[in-house]
Amino acid sequence: MTATEAPESKCDVLVVGAGPAGLMLATWMAHCGINARVVDKRSTKIYNGQADGLQMRSLEIFDSLGFADRAWKEANHMLEMCMWNPGEDGKIRRSDRVPDTPPNLCRFTQIVLHQGRIERFFLDNIKKYSKDTLHIDRAVLPESLDIDQKACADHSADIYPITVKLRHLTDEEATPAQSKGSTVNDGLFRSNLAGDDTDDLIQKSREKQGSTEIIKAKYVVGCDGAHSWTRRQLGFQLEGEPTDFIWGVLDIIPITDFPDIRMRCAVHSASNGSLMVIPRENKLVRLYIQLTEIKPDASGRADRSRITPETIISAAQKIIAPYSLSYHYCDWWTAYQIGQRVGTNFDSQNRVFLAGDAVHTHSPKAGQGMNVSMQDAYNLGWKLGLVVKGVAKPSILATYQDERRKIAQDLIDFDHKFSRLFSGRPAKDVLDETGVSMAAFKDAFVKGNMFASGLSVDYGASMLVAKDSNQDLATNTPIGMRFPSHKVLNQCSAQPYHFQERLKSDGCFRIVVFAGNVLSPAQSARLRAFCDKLSTSTFLAPHLHNNIAILTCHSAKRTDTDLLSDFPDVLHRFDEKTGWDYDAVYVDDVSYHEGYADAYKGYGVQKETGCVVITRPDQYVGYVGALDGEEGWEGVEAYFKGVFVTI
Amino acid sequence: MTATEAPESKCDVLVVGAGPAGLMLATWMAHCGINARVVDKRSTKIYNGQADGLQMRSLEIFDSLGFADRAWKEANHMLEMCMWNPGEDGKIRRSDRVPDTPPNLCRFTQIVLHQGRIERFFLDNIKKYSKDTLHIDRAVLPESLDIDQKACADHSADIYPITVKLRHLTDEEATPAQSKGSTVNDGLFRSNLAGDDTDDLIQKSREKQGSTEIIKAKYVVGCDGAHSWTRRQLGFQLEGEPTDFIWGVLDIIPITDFPDIRMRCAVHSASNGSLMVIPRENKLVRLYIQLTEIKPDASGRADRSRITPETIISAAQKIIAPYSLSYHYCDWWTAYQIGQRVGTNFDSQNRVFLAGDAVHTHSPKAGQGMNVSMQDAYNLGWKLGLVVKGVAKPSILATYQDERRKIAQDLIDFDHKFSRLFSGRPAKDVLDETGVSMAAFKDAFVKGNMFASGLSVDYGASMLVAKDSNQDLATNTPIGMRFPSHKVLNQCSAQPYHFQERLKSDGCFRIVVFAGNVLSPAQSARLRAFCDKLSTSTFLAPHLHNNIAILTCHSAKRTDTDLLSDFPDVLHRFDEKTGWDYDAVYVDDVSYHEGYADAYKGYGVQKETGCVVITRPDQYVGYVGALDGEEGWEGVEAYFKGVFVTI
Repeated sequence: MTATEAPESKCDVLVVGAGPAGLMLATWMAHCGINARVVDKRSTKIYNGQADGLQMRSLEIFDSLGFADRAWKEANHMLEMCMWNPGEDGKIRRSDRVPDTPPNLCRFTQIVLHQGRIERFFLDNIKKYSKDTLHIDRAVLPESLDIDQKACADHSADIYPITVKLRHLTDEEATPAQSKGSTVNDGLFRSNLAGDDTDDLIQKSREKQGSTEIIKAKYVVGCDGAHSWTRRQLGFQLEGEPTDFIWGVLDIIPITDFPDIRMRCAVHSASNGSLMVIPRENKLVRLYIQLTEIKPDASGRADRSRITPETIISAAQKIIAPYSLSYHYCDWWTAYQIGQRVGTNFDSQNRVFLAGDAVHTHSPKAGQGMNVSMQDAYNLGWKLGLVVKGVAKPSILATYQDERRKIAQDLIDFDHKFSRLFSGRPAKDVLDETGVSMAAFKDAFVKGNMFASGLSVDYGASMLVAKDSNQDLATNTPIGMRFPSHKVLNQCSAQPYHFQERLKSDGCFRIVVFAGNVLSPAQSARLRAFCDKLSTSTFLAPHLHNNIAILTCHSAKRTDTDLLSDFPDVLHRFDEKTGWDYDAVYVDDVSYHEGYADAYKGYGVQKETGCVVITRPDQYVGYVGALDGEEGWEGVEAYFKGVFVTI
Repeated sequence: MTATEAPESKCDVLVVGAGPAGLMLATWMAHCGINARVVDKRSTKIYNGQADGLQMRSLEIFDSLGFADRAWKEANHMLEMCMWNPGEDGKIRRSDRVPDTPPNLCRFTQIVLHQGRIERFFLDNIKKYSKDTLHIDRAVLPESLDIDQKACADHSADIYPITVKLRHLTDEEATPAQSKGSTVNDGLFRSNLAGDDTDDLIQKSREKQGSTEIIKAKYVVGCDGAHSWTRRQLGFQLEGEPTDFIWGVLDIIPITDFPDIRMRCAVHSASNGSLMVIPRENKLVRLYIQLTEIKPDASGRADRSRITPETIISAAQKIIAPYSLSYHYCDWWTAYQIGQRVGTNFDSQNRVFLAGDAVHTHSPKAGQGMNVSMQDAYNLGWKLGLVVKGVAKPSILATYQDERRKIAQDLIDFDHKFSRLFSGRPAKDVLDETGVSMAAFKDAFVKGNMFASGLSVDYGASMLVAKDSNQDLATNTPIGMRFPSHKVLNQCSAQPYHFQERLKSDGCFRIVVFAGNVLSPAQSARLRAFCDKLSTSTFLAPHLHNNIAILTCHSAKRTDTDLLSDFPDVLHRFDEKTGWDYDAVYVDDVSYHEGYADAYKGYGVQKETGCVVITRPDQYVGYVGALDGEEGWEGVEAYFKGVFVTI
């Protein structure tokens, strides 16, 4: 299979696909300093349309990477969801308003911004962190994937069990065709209404000379979408069924007298189908519009050629009547057939992984696709990083499928329920059994909101999640869920921070020391004993400050305590050139400008005696234990002995 | 004086100096679309050191221009000021802590970031807005300034009364010499301990051919620093006196056991002088250190050659003892002699203006210099913009000197008092009359904080400030002061905003309609009558939406009101291509995530009946009046007839 003339090179991680999942993976590689390569068959990145919703958890992740502020500034913020249903006269009217994002869960709310900007933020961030260890090549397509099965179990530094042949395309080959006659960008070529062009592209390119190369890789991640070439090479399937529901999508600047056009709206008409309004940045509004007049044929697939912006807006006008709706400017449009499918396998031998649409596809209306895809890659990236660096045991790679396949299944179940409630005809009354109850729809939306936020993810027990550690000591900091955020002050500068802001995506685990009331002699003694163990452990010594960072939050008064006298050195280590670390110790105390923090209460930690929490590099809580006693120091060391290799 | 061979060109506004004042002026020119040119004799922008404090009002201005978020993210935030004084044993100890920024004045607090980054934000913003109408040329020096006195009074579009000859320098000429033997950047060449090199540079460059050009300008603004060449051409003086106090400045990463090194600190030692600590970004700390062993000679000027980083840190060590203080990394250093001077004139014939250090110099420790300088230019820029565009009466230009000279005098008075209290020896007890009372120092600091925030600026009565309009209708929105900020919601999207965020620096005046309870039939009738007048005025018609924007905030419940039915069209105008304006009407109502706004109470406006406020393009309040009655519509029209020309 290998061409003798093709140039050959090595990389630690090869990522196939430079969409949000692929770029998230690449961003982790950049932050961890891993030698990686990303290839994408398209010649340019996306400038219009595609996915747009950013959920709360995605924004927390962006913040940990360093660019949540850019998304927050440019995006449209969605505050309220309005439900419109037929009244007794059959005309639509607003039946309900609910907050689009449940209050008090997170410092962010749901926002909307088009995928092209989000990919720009990733690319800028990768450039900032990668220092020439990472390359993104466009118009490059993998043609073959060979796995040396015998070599897979050995994760030593010099073993590259995967051989991938890459094919370089011309610009023309790599630019997807747009619908004929249209001057507006569309996304039909990516839609599930269109077939995949990968095999065609490979076939065409084979007629040319000198356009291939060979990559030897330790790991490959397929982030190559619903038609995933990588998945096909592995012989894995997506399982699930399509429905008969066809929906169109329009990004327009609307001209309308519909009063809630700047709110997120679910509009169920009496008999013309449903519509969702998603207000966007730059005066744009995205409309998801049910196309009731278009049905799949016998093959199960709808006729694409009948779908145009004109047919879509015409369907929207019928749904939203008696309000007027038109536009002068259309930014992008597409159409898709609703269905839910989930991958049978997420990895092969802990060497080749699948993420994003390659392992779950569903309808886009809940704004989940891009978010769950990025979160797949966010779960996997640091694990690959730590294994490549020889720091963590290779067996942590198996937790990727364990943790993410359940999320994918939950997503599919959620979307299955939600999209049927949305696409169904509203019930006329309680006796109308084939109609959808609008009360049931609202109920599903409100319950679904928590799932959709991305904050309810709860990973199961594993070497990374010590579910049986002492949850009682941090009752509102669930083991397996993301570390919640509450306001604390920096001990040395009195600056308020959301504590989660200090858990950067730098590849480090963190020992979060809730030091309690350090002014109590007994508590101070417990803290000093714990820190003595921490700084003298021969197992942890090579990992400390490199792969394990330490963050402290105490509960005594800020002005009564002092960094140098009240906190052992290991909590704020000294560097000969830059002095003490002033960014490691925090306090749960009153701020001058932002009121009381009450963080200990927020985390459910006893103010007097505190506790120890371990967070993973992705901010998920791995362990909770006491500062002393049997679980004290031994619990912490045991956790890390389960994850890290002895150096 | 004009050279026949030199190329000649025209520009509306020529700015001399590309420091913070010059760049602020240029930014206004970019936002107003004015053809302008900026020249600076230095070849490169600043990368280290110089000014660093950003006060609250400066951040509000940055926000209105679009880059407060960048400064906010990169800067160090200062929360607390600690006072250290000698105890009875003569050793320093912390005597007080006070908030560095008074709470509840502003949505920002004081922050610290070096001048180079701030100049970068200006340059990026100018590039974004200027569309090739604005050029910044470095290593270019004005050599002569001629004013056609007879032409000055005629502000017609084709009159260019000012001729400036520019000289292009070589890179070598334009790069300031650094102290001999030092590898660290210093700012001595800009300090008042050094002479000015402008005349030398002109003399040297005259030996070369073909390095001049002629600019014909309508207006010139001298932002060229304390040694201002522009000021000298006009024959204006700075008046005031130097003191004997010499201070050094070090930007270092400190290695120390001083507990408050990440707080702003004022340290008065018993007999070794005083020191100020300003924590900075990237682990840096700026130290202002009194050099008690260096005195001015008979000429009144100190010997620069005796001042080095070593002598400065040595002085600091004596002041901060018994704590240790040293460093491995020094980023920048300088020294200066304290003095306070203010310009006799801020403009010549409303054609040539001076701003920033060209008209006020003082000690840097209160973090005022860069802020007041930028605010000078912020006051002048839009006035020049509107006059050049032929929209405003040229007589508004006279308000620049009226408004800013008083601020400069206040600044000088503040600094005179503050710097003497800071440089003085602490009193041993109440009988020690030559010593400085530490209680008096704290009192001066706390009082000075309000002045230093930049928020207490109160411009006097003029065509732009109708002090005799109806203050009673908006009791907490003082006429002549900056429009305060309170949280409101967008009527159409429910998104919370600080209302001041909607007053962008786009060159527009704003009619802020506090529409009151629009659900009351009587109030609705008043609002409609006012809006009828507004949309049918022949005087205002050509200015409306171009030079005058309209913002509305009502007090009825958001969910009971509707943009199209409850608010006259002029408050949310319709555009054929983009539909209704959804960003013009706001409401004082509860938000989902940020609590109650209570904006009407904050502005001191009656919730039922509201009022009308006019804000200037720089966010200062120009007028307050009722929606109806004699002051109603006539008051608004009369205000604008005083400012705008009839088109």
